[in-house]
Amino acid sequence: MRTQVGIIGAGPAGLMLSHLLHLYGIESIILENRTREQIEGTIRAGVLEQGTVNLLNEVGVGDRMMREGYIHHGIELQFNGVRHRINMHELTDGKSIMLYAQHEVIKDLVQVRLDSGGEIIFNVEDVQIHNIDSKTPKITFRREKDGELEEISCNFIAGCDGYHGPSRQAIPKEVRKEIKHTYPFGWLGILIEMPPVSPELIYTNHESGFALLSTRSDDIQRFYLQVDPNDDIENWSDDRIWTELHTRVDTKDGWNISEGPIIQKNIVSMRSFICEPMQYGQLFIAGDAAHIVPPTGAKGLNLAIADVQVLAKGLKQFYQTSETELLEQYSSICLRRVWKAQRFSSWMTNILHRNFKHSHFEYGLQLTELDVVTSSKAAATNLAENYVGLPIEWEL
Amino acid sequence: MRTQVGIIGAGPAGLMLSHLLHLYGIESIILENRTREQIEGTIRAGVLEQGTVNLLNEVGVGDRMMREGYIHHGIELQFNGVRHRINMHELTDGKSIMLYAQHEVIKDLVQVRLDSGGEIIFNVEDVQIHNIDSKTPKITFRREKDGELEEISCNFIAGCDGYHGPSRQAIPKEVRKEIKHTYPFGWLGILIEMPPVSPELIYTNHESGFALLSTRSDDIQRFYLQVDPNDDIENWSDDRIWTELHTRVDTKDGWNISEGPIIQKNIVSMRSFICEPMQYGQLFIAGDAAHIVPPTGAKGLNLAIADVQVLAKGLKQFYQTSETELLEQYSSICLRRVWKAQRFSSWMTNILHRNFKHSHFEYGLQLTELDVVTSSKAAATNLAENYVGLPIEWEL
Repeated sequence: MRTQVGIIGAGPAGLMLSHLLHLYGIESIILENRTREQIEGTIRAGVLEQGTVNLLNEVGVGDRMMREGYIHHGIELQFNGVRHRINMHELTDGKSIMLYAQHEVIKDLVQVRLDSGGEIIFNVEDVQIHNIDSKTPKITFRREKDGELEEISCNFIAGCDGYHGPSRQAIPKEVRKEIKHTYPFGWLGILIEMPPVSPELIYTNHESGFALLSTRSDDIQRFYLQVDPNDDIENWSDDRIWTELHTRVDTKDGWNISEGPIIQKNIVSMRSFICEPMQYGQLFIAGDAAHIVPPTGAKGLNLAIADVQVLAKGLKQFYQTSETELLEQYSSICLRRVWKAQRFSSWMTNILHRNFKHSHFEYGLQLTELDVVTSSKAAATNLAENYVGLPIEWEL
Repeated sequence: MRTQVGIIGAGPAGLMLSHLLHLYGIESIILENRTREQIEGTIRAGVLEQGTVNLLNEVGVGDRMMREGYIHHGIELQFNGVRHRINMHELTDGKSIMLYAQHEVIKDLVQVRLDSGGEIIFNVEDVQIHNIDSKTPKITFRREKDGELEEISCNFIAGCDGYHGPSRQAIPKEVRKEIKHTYPFGWLGILIEMPPVSPELIYTNHESGFALLSTRSDDIQRFYLQVDPNDDIENWSDDRIWTELHTRVDTKDGWNISEGPIIQKNIVSMRSFICEPMQYGQLFIAGDAAHIVPPTGAKGLNLAIADVQVLAKGLKQFYQTSETELLEQYSSICLRRVWKAQRFSSWMTNILHRNFKHSHFEYGLQLTELDVVTSSKAAATNLAENYVGLPIEWEL
């Protein structure tokens, strides 16, 4: 097989890239090692930045999101038992965020690709990358275990295959810098069958730990409790979860969280990861293949979408003019924004979680940071403009 | 002796308090364990916030400052060899800072107190505080070593006697919380005989460490280099200092620091300290007696002046109406602002100094914080409004 851009991974990055390239008249093939049912059924959070929402609408994939998603104009920050609203809409000249789950975005993107004749090969095995330092790179794969080895010849390879995929590993170790950080916090996430408890997300700092009240739909809610990342979910009975939620999120002025049946619970750890550079030869990596952020800033999906916007424009420039200027800047443009998202995610994580190893001084600074961000318009604006999403800075 | 308010310490806090009380028709006596020559001759930095400048002018002590001080509308932040100006004047609707050394402020305040018949007893010994949990507290002292024990009876005692003074120790240990933090950074400060090298302060982040270019007068400049706090000044020849300054502050676009004769050099360590509460019975502590900040934010003198503004207004309310409402809020009003200044000073310290124990991730976040603060107006405004000084929040 031949194509212009071989894409590994049918997550938001790979699918959006393929769609953007199609709109620019550039051919691509996507290889995905899971089935369509699997990628569409893996339930993931989804807080979409204004720029992500705008892009989905501009490229004709936003209709269902606009019907079924929830636009939020603000978030609540709670500490010392008192809630403070950050009016993001007002602080960012009218921007907002959209709650629309990642697997719904994936469904919409798969549909639009298949409707326009795009090729997504699901359920592949043994994906391998070859010759990325030549102008004729190749991807080999099998359609089933022990099946025939097939080959895609292309001009470029886009590695959109997540943290565990083979793409990043194809960048030689001598030029690849992997920067890692582990946070001493875990999130116990629960799904509850009940209506929303609040019109907006509530981020809570409590001396017992962080809690987040989020939503999935009119009937399903998503809450999180900070726990030890090595804790066992078996230690958390429904009763204990509700007791802890009441402790952390009930307010001084008498607001109490309502309860409902818990239909799922699990514990995840939190980390930051960055691969520098994000390009080597004809290989470009994007999304989770290149970076992981802690979930507190809700940036993961949005970073992936921003990466492939830069990559698609660079490829468009190349195929229309033979210029490689933008492709050469791909890594730098993306990494500057990735670092800003890491900074924001790390800051949100650190101001909201309780670090039991902190000194009195460090804990005092943390509470003061919350005081400042809820009492200074400039500090609140800094939070808001990061939360709704920073622009892509095209000029280096 | 009798007075209404006994003040321990003739630093900026004690002197300004005494002057404000005088303007409100309230009597005070100041005890100071150094001589007038010593307090007026101890050379200290002085970056005055807009609010401090305004107060000095309002209470008639600003004339010499306005003639001899330097008004700065911005500061320079340098990293990766490139300078970025923070236009504080524009970002804070016209506020600025004044470079006017602390000992000059002290000279002006001593003069105005003595001119209006104020009593400052210099060079005292053995100052002790008594009966602060009664309505008739006392201060005892001697005018010379082994001299006669003298006593001041008063309604209130203001402890403005610095970190090592006796006032804070008079708050019983059971109610006194002392919060401390040591930074792994030291400042090697030098005085140089030469004209200013730059119209504004230059704060430099370099991979070898922090540097700050400040000024004292048209002829004397003050520079600082980050060093190990346990380093010995004997290790720093003038040659080594200039080599290190060139390394850290010369810019990519060819600006080189000019050199001059170094007339003084020393190394100081950096720490944060907060005492909670700042009041017990009839005793109120202010300034360095209650809190120490690292010098990076230039907040020490300004916090002292803000404390005594709150205290003076509380005492005025008491003597005019017998109401103690504001005096009861003294500690809370001051501490909220003190914590914000600690947060700012700590943040400035941490973004500008090189922490050699940091991971690649932490160092990356630090450089990104500098990128954000010089590329986001909201983030720059947050810096600027803290640098020119936050308002005193009278309502809790």
